[in-house]
Amino acid sequence: MTASPGSAGQVAFADPDYRRAVVDLLGAIAYGELSAFERLVDDSKLAPTLEDKVALGAMAAAEFGHFVPLQARIAELGTDPFAAMAPFRAAIDQFHEHTAPADWHEGLVKAYVGDGLAADFYREIAAYLDIDTRDLIIASLADSGHSEFVVDRVRASIAAEGRLAGRLALWGRRLMGEALSQAQRVAADRDALAALLAGGVDRPGMDLAAIARMFSRLTERHAERMGRLGLDS
Amino acid sequence: MTASPGSAGQVAFADPDYRRAVVDLLGAIAYGELSAFERLVDDSKLAPTLEDKVALGAMAAAEFGHFVPLQARIAELGTDPFAAMAPFRAAIDQFHEHTAPADWHEGLVKAYVGDGLAADFYREIAAYLDIDTRDLIIASLADSGHSEFVVDRVRASIAAEGRLAGRLALWGRRLMGEALSQAQRVAADRDALAALLAGGVDRPGMDLAAIARMFSRLTERHAERMGRLGLDS
Repeated sequence: MTASPGSAGQVAFADPDYRRAVVDLLGAIAYGELSAFERLVDDSKLAPTLEDKVALGAMAAAEFGHFVPLQARIAELGTDPFAAMAPFRAAIDQFHEHTAPADWHEGLVKAYVGDGLAADFYREIAAYLDIDTRDLIIASLADSGHSEFVVDRVRASIAAEGRLAGRLALWGRRLMGEALSQAQRVAADRDALAALLAGGVDRPGMDLAAIARMFSRLTERHAERMGRLGLDS
Repeated sequence: MTASPGSAGQVAFADPDYRRAVVDLLGAIAYGELSAFERLVDDSKLAPTLEDKVALGAMAAAEFGHFVPLQARIAELGTDPFAAMAPFRAAIDQFHEHTAPADWHEGLVKAYVGDGLAADFYREIAAYLDIDTRDLIIASLADSGHSEFVVDRVRASIAAEGRLAGRLALWGRRLMGEALSQAQRVAADRDALAALLAGGVDRPGMDLAAIARMFSRLTERHAERMGRLGLDS
């Protein structure tokens, strides 16, 4: 298979480090979507009604739909998609092992907050990439609208049982903590991704101040999401 | 919600028994697809490689994709899709409980043979329905091409380990037996479906001889599928 990146990214892709970093990033997102697909189906078994199960199933199927073009793009860039995903399996699997929902409400909050956090993070990084890659990443993170039902369900449950809010607020903090600790692990392991953030000839990079600002944006948006669910962050 | 069946089915849908039977049938197919989606994702955990897992995941996602228009059509016919699915949950869940694959190969054979059998059965019934319903059912049963990988995998595994063929042949027979016993249970329970097969003013029905011929066609096609996998039926 030969590489054929779009013209907009040709200068960038001439740099083998850039290409490696993009393959890394797409591999991480692809495995993230794939495992989200699997976990959402698992978590949907906790649903109190078939209707709720179908709503979470629809979020799962959308994740698989996003996975497919990422897989194709990695292959187009000359790398076996499964090889590209491999380095991220341990961290992402561990995130899910450490955040297995104990009940339906935890599953709902995880679907909404986890998905949103991952999407924000990858969108931040995408801003530093060639336009084709950026568009692909942004499309693959689009919320298909199914997650609005999570907001309805969680708010209704808190209205019915006030004590739930405290427990779910703690759960949201735990999700954020686990996500950050696995992200740090990946960043420490993958030089190509770290170099990507540092920039290149034709691409601006991120200095430490920019990274700090990114984290404060991520935290802020996480707090907004928790707020929409009726939860403190 | 008001009913708005296509013009081709208007005469038929004026008969409330016909409408009830169609809703029943669509409910059964919809719940079948939904539970296949869930079980395929479960069974994909037995996959020896991430590549195999993705292939089964693609079959699962296709089932969910087929479920969505069925759900919409039931609602269009004026029935809550979840109410329409409810009468079939016990039989379909029991089929899956009785046929939980013990390993990856059993999962593959079940995906291929179970899916094929259900598709053949519903296609046979669809032949007796108005054209809109028939088209919807046939589209919802379309094989998205992913199942070819099952044939490759099973044949390769049998080539590598001959003993597997005997065990998987027995497994295929068990799948057929369980499917028939649950189908009989549903037929005995659902008068509307039984009446559907008996025909109506503007629709031909099935007599006992026709039903017998249908079962022999189903058995024949099952044997063909088993043969494609390299298995005796």
